[in-house]
Formats: sequence, structure tokens, C-alpha cells
Amino acid sequence: MSESDDPKLRSRRRFLASAATAAAVAATAPVTAAAHGRAATSSSSSESGGDSEPFFGLHQAGVATMPQANVYFAAFDLTTEKREDVVALLRAWTAASARLTQGLSAVALTDDSASAEPDSYDAAGLNTDRLTLTFGFGPGMFTKDGKDRYGLDKHRPEALADLPRFNGDQLVPERTGGELCIQACADNPQVAFHAVRQLSRLAYGTATIRWAQSGFMAAPKDKGTPRNLMGFKDGSMNVPIRDEASMNRYVWAGDEGGWMQHGTYMVARPIRIALEHWDRMKLSFQEQVVGRQKHSGAPLGQKNENDSLALDANDASGNPIIPENAHVRLGAPENNDGAQILRRAYSYDNGLSYIAERWPPWHQGMEFDAGLLFICYQRDPRTGFVKIFDKMSKFDMMNQFVTHVGGGLFACPPGAREGGYIGQPLFELT
Amino acid sequence: MSESDDPKLRSRRRFLASAATAAAVAATAPVTAAAHGRAATSSSSSESGGDSEPFFGLHQAGVATMPQANVYFAAFDLTTEKREDVVALLRAWTAASARLTQGLSAVALTDDSASAEPDSYDAAGLNTDRLTLTFGFGPGMFTKDGKDRYGLDKHRPEALADLPRFNGDQLVPERTGGELCIQACADNPQVAFHAVRQLSRLAYGTATIRWAQSGFMAAPKDKGTPRNLMGFKDGSMNVPIRDEASMNRYVWAGDEGGWMQHGTYMVARPIRIALEHWDRMKLSFQEQVVGRQKHSGAPLGQKNENDSLALDANDASGNPIIPENAHVRLGAPENNDGAQILRRAYSYDNGLSYIAERWPPWHQGMEFDAGLLFICYQRDPRTGFVKIFDKMSKFDMMNQFVTHVGGGLFACPPGAREGGYIGQPLFELT
Repeated sequence: MSESDDPKLRSRRRFLASAATAAAVAATAPVTAAAHGRAATSSSSSESGGDSEPFFGLHQAGVATMPQANVYFAAFDLTTEKREDVVALLRAWTAASARLTQGLSAVALTDDSASAEPDSYDAAGLNTDRLTLTFGFGPGMFTKDGKDRYGLDKHRPEALADLPRFNGDQLVPERTGGELCIQACADNPQVAFHAVRQLSRLAYGTATIRWAQSGFMAAPKDKGTPRNLMGFKDGSMNVPIRDEASMNRYVWAGDEGGWMQHGTYMVARPIRIALEHWDRMKLSFQEQVVGRQKHSGAPLGQKNENDSLALDANDASGNPIIPENAHVRLGAPENNDGAQILRRAYSYDNGLSYIAERWPPWHQGMEFDAGLLFICYQRDPRTGFVKIFDKMSKFDMMNQFVTHVGGGLFACPPGAREGGYIGQPLFELT
Repeated sequence: MSESDDPKLRSRRRFLASAATAAAVAATAPVTAAAHGRAATSSSSSESGGDSEPFFGLHQAGVATMPQANVYFAAFDLTTEKREDVVALLRAWTAASARLTQGLSAVALTDDSASAEPDSYDAAGLNTDRLTLTFGFGPGMFTKDGKDRYGLDKHRPEALADLPRFNGDQLVPERTGGELCIQACADNPQVAFHAVRQLSRLAYGTATIRWAQSGFMAAPKDKGTPRNLMGFKDGSMNVPIRDEASMNRYVWAGDEGGWMQHGTYMVARPIRIALEHWDRMKLSFQEQVVGRQKHSGAPLGQKNENDSLALDANDASGNPIIPENAHVRLGAPENNDGAQILRRAYSYDNGLSYIAERWPPWHQGMEFDAGLLFICYQRDPRTGFVKIFDKMSKFDMMNQFVTHVGGGLFACPPGAREGGYIGQPLFELT
């Protein structure tokens, strides 16, 4: 068989040509398209398809982006002592992310047969499926075990203050922490996982993957608020992602942020839900726990999901209609000095685990190891998640059904501009 | 607030009315619509939506059904000693499955506030997403620890012969076995998980869930064969599900089956893939391992995915173009007395695990705990999976990258008819 007849080489050349076309398209796309995280449909290459989200912009994508159906979240530890290695990794991740989010292989394929292909190819032929890749820096990038490995400690944002230990926390080390994180979201689990896998390969020698959790979120037919595994709508009264004023007030770091301006802070927590226990509860009790009606999503005592919480309303006996320790009451801005966070949570399913229930009927055995990968974004965690969750962790009636089993805190820098890289404003400081 | 003004009650009444309509629709749908497992689009109820697959039929759905994007597989152990309890469970599962696959709650909701709702409600408002529920009976339903609990042992099919221990098997008990199984498939992970969760609740007191594994499969834009996590097309040269003659020959039990006629046998095996190891291999080596070209899917030495395997072709040096121990050669019907099985595999992702690699670079640490939930269907496992896999388990070059970590063998009875239940032909025998 002559080389020109080799279908593999011909197919390869087509892919390379197509990739070059798509890269050119991506390079001419306006950077500001992503500025407010709105969906773009720039899928003009034959290799991408479906909707694609721009990677470059004022803010990172994946925060104000309309939530996709799937997430693959991964946290990494840095194994290098050299600042330039970290910069090189962030440059490589940025370049790969710009390609992956346009439906290309992570790194351009070549005809070099002497080494492994730089892309595992399992996403070849798939739609881009609105892939977004959102990066964060954990406290350990600034100081680890008292050591300032990269000369960054003086630039650690005050807002990146270590989370306190909350009441009820059962954080296992294998699912906690991380010095870098990636939130990969897409409308296809294989696209999200593929992206993290390629980025993980690019980190060999510089960072190792520490923990990971995938999740899903099912959009209702009416495009309304999705339900989590407790069967309740999850995300009512969220910060409106399309309202720039709200986003600037609650989510994006402002002038106070220095190099973090236009960035945001992420708290990620896998929260196990004791589904078998929850399922044994009566509807009326579940609704008291949440403070909302299960079917409509309306606050107790109200009619519609988006009605305000009538926190002062009492029933005929003089008891509050939304109980004192109901989930929504404790989380309400009215009870937290106006604090609001952008929730972007996904349900997760990790199969089964052997679990000893803490409550009647005291079951021990294999149970669903499932729950909520809670992810939230905020301008300052001290006045966001910490403020809100401190009270919840102590008093929320929901705590008998949920357990925080891991988590991380990350500073998500502003978006990168073409030719730049994620985190550049930090690493250019001296 | 008067009762008629209560939006919860009004919403509930709407749901009940709608459910009744949908049930009437389902009851009048021709049973034979599912006879060959083809997709039906009978979503005429306001509560269902998207495509729905009929539950009743000559064969169970989920075998010859065009593969959906997601699976939730679960195996159960029977905890009862009474045959009538098993029958009651199968009746309850059948009734719930008929409802769930039409987009209804597992059990009709009532206004009974004295007990927990019979549906967790997390799939409310979602599309039906082609949900199928496929049931199987493991060897332990017939004999367990030498005991014939339900008087069924004399009816155990010869084809349900315990699998041998294969070379390389690393089956952990927590992911192996089961006396009942459910394969829930849908184009939405939450719909599949929701179904198994409701069925698991209906089993309380009769059976407990033993192991579970979810998975996904991403359909390429060109509607071609999906790629698994190795980056290769998985499912080329499969038994054609729309060809009745092939299905009858290789998949459905025939006259020889007795009560199993029109049923089939399932082998399910979670197979971990050492992705980090595989990703370090050169493309040419990966292709030698598989025996196919990675990008096009064509057999080595051929041009197109669907070209036949040129098993006798040699290169200029006289060596076979498809290596002696290539995956496709060992699995080819030509080398297995014509054996063929219907593969219906899904990729899985269980996050990370601490893993000690067996091969250079001898890495130990957190690695992707991911792979393939291999599921196959056949008329007789002895001449299907066992025949094919025996040789593969010993010689397949792929074995250095994959490990079978669990699994089960199940007799999947024929489909149920309206008013009947799954497994009825077995339990009506004396």
C-alpha cells in the first residue's frame, strides 16, 4: 500500500487541516464574546459542533455560563518547587483549554510516531457540548506547610482565608483540598472527563491529580429549576447570572481584588445525602426541613417558586410557617446580612458504599453513595459561603440527612486574553 | 387558606389526572410495539415527553433497543425465604416499570400524608428519555449455598452455568454476583438512577441492593460507533439489533429455552482501564493491541470500519498484519467457532482511587478509577461470552491495560405481557 493510499494518513491530514481552520476561526472570534459568560455558537469548524463556549474573556467561563448537564471536577497538588514550572503548566492548560472548548484535540496531533499521541481521542467526533474549563488556585499555591514555594504568599488574597472547620464536617483527606482545580462542565460527561484527562496529562511532572468528582444535572422540560436527588428544586432564588449588577455585587471580585479583579472564589463540597433515610420521611416533614413545597418549589405558605420567603408569617397556632431551622430560612439573605452566593451544584452518584446509618431504622449495609457536589461562587467567601454555612452547619434540620465529606476553596482568577494565560496577573507581580 | 386555594393540592390533582390519562394511553398501546425492541414514540401524555420505550412485549426492552446515553446497573440479593415474596416483588417491579418507562411516578401518588411518598420525585418534570428497565435472575435465585429457597432449582436453565474463573480475574465481592439485576438505561443519568432508586425501595424486606455501577456512552455527531475511554470505536461488527434473524440466532433464547424462550443471558463486568498507562503508549502500539486503526476504526490493513478482518493477511516480512494476540483477532467469530455476542457496553468513571500500576513507570498514587462497564447479551453464555473470553483472558495484549474487577451472570426472562409480570413463565411452573 502506498503512503498516499493509507486511509489513516489521509484521515489524519484531514483532521490537521480542519483543526487549523478551526484555530483560525477561534483566533478571530471577539474576546469580549465571553465577557459576561453568555453562550456563543461559534461552531463553524467541521471538527467542533453543537454549541461552543468561548474560552477567553474578561471572566472565566463556567461561572456565569448557563449550567451544562455534566461536570467533572478535579483538584491537583503541585509537585514542583519552581515558579516557572507552574507558569508553564498554566500556559499549557490555557492553550489546551482554548482548543478543547472549540472541539479540537488538546494539543495538535502530528504524524510523529515516536511518542504517544497528545490526545486520548475518546472525544473525537463528539459535539463540543458547551464545554467550559474553569481554573482555581487553592491556598497551598501560596503557602504549603509554612513554605512559600513560588514567592506568591505576599499576593495571597485576604478573601482566600482558610475555611474554618464547620460543625458536622466529615472531610476525608482523599476528597479535600488541592492547590489547583479544574471545573469541567459540558452537556456530555465524556467531553468533560476527556478534557480533565488531557489536562492531567499535561501536568505530569508538575502536578498530580488529588481528588475528582463527576456530577449531573437534569434540565426539566419546562426549562425550570432542576431538582436534586432530594426531589426538591435546587437553585431557586439564585444570583441571576445574566444580571451584571448582581454578578458584580455578589460574584466577581472588584477593585478590592487586585490581581483577582474580575475573578471569583469557589467553594466545592461533595455532600453525601442519605437517600434511603430521606425517602422514608413523609412529604410534610421533608417540606418542613427544606422550607419549600416539594412539587411546586414555592416557599411554605406561598404559591409560586419565585415568591419571596414569608419569614415572618405564622400559622393559626402562632408557629412560623417556615420553621426556625428550615434550610431556606437559615440560608436566606435576610438572616445573613444580605449575603448571597451563586450556587452551581450537581448531583453525583458514586454507586454504593457500606454505610452505617445514624438514625432509625439504624440500617447498616450497602447504600447509595450519592448526593450533591455543591459548588458555589462568590466575591468573598468570608462574607459568602462561610457566613451562610456557619449557621446552617449548626442548626439546619437538613443536617440529619446530609454530610459534607470533602471539599476545597479556590481563587478563580479572571479570564485570560488571547496570547495570555490563566493566572498571568498574579505571576507577573513581583 | 382554603383547601381549594392550596397550590400544592391543585398541583397534585393535576399530576394525578395526568397520570391517569397516561396510564390509559399505555394500556391501549399495542403490546407488539416492543416485540423487536424498536423505539416507539408514544409520548402522548403531558407528564412524559421525549421518546418513550414500551415496557411490555415479547422481549424485554433494553437489549435490542438502540443504546441510550446512560446506564445505571444494579444487582440485588434476595433476603426472603418465601417464593411468594419474590413473586410479589416481581409484580411490583413490573407495575412500577410500566409506569416509570412512560414518565410517571413509580407508584401513583396519593394525598395520604401519613406515610412517605412512594416516589422520590427527582425525575418529576423530566423527559422519559427512552428509559428501559431490563431484569435478570442470577444463579442464586435458583440455588444459594446449596439451598433451593424457592423451589426453582429444577428449572434452572443449563445455559445459566456459573462462569469459570478466568485468567486475570480480580473480582471483588462488593462488585460481583447478585440474585436479581436491573439494567436501567436512558438518555439522562438522573432518569436511570431515579428508576433504580424507586425499584430498590419497593424491594425493602425482600431484596437488598448489592452492587451498582453507572456509565455513559457518547454518540458521535455522525451517528457512528461510539468511542470508549481507550479512544477506539467500541461496537464495530456487533450483532445487528434490527436484524431479527441474527438476534434469534445469537441473542434470544429459542425453543431450547423453555420458560426462557424469547429471553436472553446477560454477562455484566466492570472492567477497569489503566488510562494513565494506556495514554503513554504510542498510537502504532495501541493499534497493534486492538487490531484496528484508532482514528477510522478500520481493521489493520483495511480502509473502512466495516471492512472484514483480514486475518490471513501478512506484511512484507511475513508477519500477520493483525497480530496474533490482537484483541479483535482473539474475539473474531472465525476464531471462536462462529460465536457472537451482542455487546452493549458503557464507559464508567468512579473518580480516583489509589492504585499501584503494574507496569513502567511503576506509578503509585491517585489514578482515574474508570473503564468500561461491559454488558453483553447472548443466547447461551457457554457458547457466547465464555467461549470468546476464555482465550482473550489468556492471550489478549489488551490485558496489560484492563482488569475485570467484578461482574455478574443473569438470565433475563422474556418480556412481560400487560397484566403479567417479569419472570411469570418461571414462577408458574411447579
